[in-house]
Amino acid sequence: MDYSAILEAIARDVAPLAGAGKVASYIPELARVPSGRFGMALVGLDGQLCTVGDAQERFSVQSISKVFTLTLAIRQIGEQLFERVGREPSGNPFNSLVQLEYEQGIPRNPFINAGALVVTDVLLTQMADAKAAVLDFARHLCGCSDIAYDASVAASERQTGYTNAALANYLKSHDNLHNSVEAVLDAYYHHCSLSMSCVELAKAFLFLANHGVTPASGERLLTVSQTKRLNALLLTCGFYDEAGEFAFRVGLPGKSGVGGGIAAIMPGRWAVTVWSPEINGYGNSVRGMKALEMLTTRTGESIF
Amino acid sequence: MDYSAILEAIARDVAPLAGAGKVASYIPELARVPSGRFGMALVGLDGQLCTVGDAQERFSVQSISKVFTLTLAIRQIGEQLFERVGREPSGNPFNSLVQLEYEQGIPRNPFINAGALVVTDVLLTQMADAKAAVLDFARHLCGCSDIAYDASVAASERQTGYTNAALANYLKSHDNLHNSVEAVLDAYYHHCSLSMSCVELAKAFLFLANHGVTPASGERLLTVSQTKRLNALLLTCGFYDEAGEFAFRVGLPGKSGVGGGIAAIMPGRWAVTVWSPEINGYGNSVRGMKALEMLTTRTGESIF
Amino acid sequence: MDYSAILEAIARDVAPLAGAGKVASYIPELARVPSGRFGMALVGLDGQLCTVGDAQERFSVQSISKVFTLTLAIRQIGEQLFERVGREPSGNPFNSLVQLEYEQGIPRNPFINAGALVVTDVLLTQMADAKAAVLDFARHLCGCSDIAYDASVAASERQTGYTNAALANYLKSHDNLHNSVEAVLDAYYHHCSLSMSCVELAKAFLFLANHGVTPASGERLLTVSQTKRLNALLLTCGFYDEAGEFAFRVGLPGKSGVGGGIAAIMPGRWAVTVWSPEINGYGNSVRGMKALEMLTTRTGESIF
Amino acid sequence: MDYSAILEAIARDVAPLAGAGKVASYIPELARVPSGRFGMALVGLDGQLCTVGDAQERFSVQSISKVFTLTLAIRQIGEQLFERVGREPSGNPFNSLVQLEYEQGIPRNPFINAGALVVTDVLLTQMADAKAAVLDFARHLCGCSDIAYDASVAASERQTGYTNAALANYLKSHDNLHNSVEAVLDAYYHHCSLSMSCVELAKAFLFLANHGVTPASGERLLTVSQTKRLNALLLTCGFYDEAGEFAFRVGLPGKSGVGGGIAAIMPGRWAVTVWSPEINGYGNSVRGMKALEMLTTRTGESIF
Repeated sequence: MDYSAILEAIARDVAPLAGAGKVASYIPELARVPSGRFGMALVGLDGQLCTVGDAQERFSVQSISKVFTLTLAIRQIGEQLFERVGREPSGNPFNSLVQLEYEQGIPRNPFINAGALVVTDVLLTQMADAKAAVLDFARHLCGCSDIAYDASVAASERQTGYTNAALANYLKSHDNLHNSVEAVLDAYYHHCSLSMSCVELAKAFLFLANHGVTPASGERLLTVSQTKRLNALLLTCGFYDEAGEFAFRVGLPGKSGVGGGIAAIMPGRWAVTVWSPEINGYGNSVRGMKALEMLTTRTGESIF
Repeated sequence: MDYSAILEAIARDVAPLAGAGKVASYIPELARVPSGRFGMALVGLDGQLCTVGDAQERFSVQSISKVFTLTLAIRQIGEQLFERVGREPSGNPFNSLVQLEYEQGIPRNPFINAGALVVTDVLLTQMADAKAAVLDFARHLCGCSDIAYDASVAASERQTGYTNAALANYLKSHDNLHNSVEAVLDAYYHHCSLSMSCVELAKAFLFLANHGVTPASGERLLTVSQTKRLNALLLTCGFYDEAGEFAFRVGLPGKSGVGGGIAAIMPGRWAVTVWSPEINGYGNSVRGMKALEMLTTRTGESIF
Repeated sequence: MDYSAILEAIARDVAPLAGAGKVASYIPELARVPSGRFGMALVGLDGQLCTVGDAQERFSVQSISKVFTLTLAIRQIGEQLFERVGREPSGNPFNSLVQLEYEQGIPRNPFINAGALVVTDVLLTQMADAKAAVLDFARHLCGCSDIAYDASVAASERQTGYTNAALANYLKSHDNLHNSVEAVLDAYYHHCSLSMSCVELAKAFLFLANHGVTPASGERLLTVSQTKRLNALLLTCGFYDEAGEFAFRVGLPGKSGVGGGIAAIMPGRWAVTVWSPEINGYGNSVRGMKALEMLTTRTGESIF
Repeated sequence: MDYSAILEAIARDVAPLAGAGKVASYIPELARVPSGRFGMALVGLDGQLCTVGDAQERFSVQSISKVFTLTLAIRQIGEQLFERVGREPSGNPFNSLVQLEYEQGIPRNPFINAGALVVTDVLLTQMADAKAAVLDFARHLCGCSDIAYDASVAASERQTGYTNAALANYLKSHDNLHNSVEAVLDAYYHHCSLSMSCVELAKAFLFLANHGVTPASGERLLTVSQTKRLNALLLTCGFYDEAGEFAFRVGLPGKSGVGGGIAAIMPGRWAVTVWSPEINGYGNSVRGMKALEMLTTRTGESIF
């Protein structure tokens, strides 16, 4: 299939959606990203790389980093993780406190903020330096040793992150954080501040399209079964309370971030990333979702 | 792949789970089904049929019928349907009133009871005889002209169905039923009372594994896009508040019923049905879920 | 105290609020009541009667009838009633399904609709003819043998009462109705359709201001303790999710109805009724609430 | 009335309830209070003082301090306060996050923890030293210059107060705290750590039984209307989600604390305090509630 031509066409076809969403503005570092940016990268299991637009420009991956931390936590403690975090869609916004209270401090899944805080807590317990370990893992996955945390993004999020602080304190009140609230939030904000490009992210996600094995090196990162499960979580929970909508329209496991990025995979075929900073009310990139819907419709490739 | 041998092995391996669930008991007709029954049928796109156990015995499909009514409603009014029913996982039990109230009478998705009542209402508006039309459609799908509603099951459900009556009245209070509460409930209970065997159900689901086309006849029932979307709904919403768990453990689009049946599909490959009447607290067959988990693990076939 | 002068002044002072609320419109019989009506009646324990405006005109008492049914139910089965209905404020609208689901079919208190349906169910079980008994009791309380149910109001409410039908079915699904849904709703709608004037209602409430004894006849209707408890329920739950507001601004036990009536009592002193059909978004009379706030402020009489 | 004899009898009659509740144990300082303590003090508007048991022993007043902070905040900014905090019963536990999320950061009333944090924030904004001001006010009210905060209680609460930290952060995320989370929590924990005896508390509450005027000095602390309103809030919201139960059984405006204290007033007559450290699942003293129920039943004095 001529993915390059398809990506080119998609880039043209989503252009009229400019202005339909809004760049995240809760911290200055995100607010000042030019709203017109659009990039897309598709990497095949065979190493084929197709790109369009700003695919090499780095952006704040934000919640897409939750895939890296979850993968690491599963590698560390496997199924045990799911004693402290559930695996059901939440039906509530990503930062909701309600579900947490009704279910006594067990976050509904690892991709809502509360769940990712628990995952981060696991890493802090398991590893000498969880911040460094996650950065190293991301570098290893994408094969770029110079990707980095954006310290000013992390600092800004920390200063204004009262909702996350509320979630972390509430988890702590239910004994579902073992490290200090401060340490968990600090690591969490650093993970979210990771800066990567579409190309880098697509490469980093490729093992999820290949039953847990990095195609180039043959390194197994997760078992077949763990990979199936992580992809299932991405499909059912990767888009906050728009997970059903993404599955319905796009039909791929994926993860979005408020920086406007979305990474998704087609098992057995490829990984794809799209970046466009204008997001909708659910926190998902407007042009990004449309671009991926076009991709699965035009290629006829989706998991369904 | 030798599916026959795999099914035989699964049947043996799930046997020890007998007693781990409970036969649905809210109406006598379901309560008197022997708890030990277990059947499984897999039908390939190539027509290959593998069965084990009680695969030819008919049982009450219950909520699996929601797939037939939804398919018909999409054929009738397409995307318009989703103005009256959402497509997000509910995060609540199948018969919850809470979500309905918070979201002003718009059911979260077509597979919770409230959503299926709206779908039934659409059919009543669109068709001269919605009860007959659904039965005819199911017969057509499985190629068996003698499957039928079980009148005594329908009557029993009606007599004791106070929760469904509450849901229907609440939908009506929000103007989200256009026909009378009585007519909607009557048709709904008939749809649920449909009796089919594993073999018949697997055949009926096969078009969903084939991008909307019945393999044998070549008849297109849904467009490629509609099929993708229906499968996405099955994956994210087909198992009530255990949808995430089913996606996580099994990794196939599917639908369960409190009669103990589960139908699922592997796109491009096959449809499978399992029946075992003992259900867990979420209303899903205990041995059925385990059998399908074994199937995707042992075949290495899942959508992820 | 010169209550007559105070009532006259209040009637003048609330007049500018005309138009600030809306006449209940969900059934034609209520919608056609002239919005400008305003009446008020105060009856002292000594028999003194002061009135202003349309105090002799009958209106649909609606939920104020819940005080009569609750009094009768307490007379019939005493504290046992509270095994089937709670006594806490609900924090939710009068017709909410949410609380009912979270608390497994036990209505939060007897003054929300779900609670009043349970109270009606108790009367149906205890009495040969619950509709007649409630009417007789209301006639006895106010000393007017010609007050009556309004059959057309009852019929209209029944035809459009889908939310109440939802509540009743849900209660039945939790075994918290012992009679048929139809019988309970029929009696309930009749009770709500009772027509009485301000003067009649004030006389009917007087025993609640006198520790359970009708002053004129000396007849004891409730024990001192039962009366204290019923008044406590009125104060904490008598105004749906505006109970706190009414206690805060007015400071009297009372009960409102969507017909625009409010009846309240000052223990040891008097009963008062106000009627003005324009209601606010919570279902409480706008001028009625203001009039009673003025009454307690100007007389310096409130329970606090 | 011979209140002394009544108090003596009550002390005897509630003794068998020892063991029916549990001493609060979330911080060591509260857990080590002897569970058998019982004290009661009644102070009349005429200055009459009756006591029984451990009425002179100081205990941690905890949430009873919310009455002092609310009184001060009303004195400072009056009705404006209610733009930032509601006045309806919450229908949820004292430390619930759910209501706060559904109502966008406006606590339902000033007596749940979230509401008291907003009240504390108001004091921090209005006063140079809010901790000192509240202590001075409490000393002034009871006429004892040596009552004090218990620094070890305050420190312990701060160390373990993750739920309160969650609430404060969530309020801050909704811009409903104007001071820093740390400053608000520090002041709040100090207020809660106030140590007072039954006699001191009863004296401090007396102005609420006297329309806002301290009887001995004639000093007006609140207007008549403000006093009515504060008493209404106590009645509808003073006992968390047992407010209805307390109104129903006791029938007085009052406030409880997890230290086992309850202060209540009978307008125009007296203030009463009871202390017994064993609390029920709602955080209210078991013997305390029973003692006050006996008091209003035996004296025939309640607001209803």
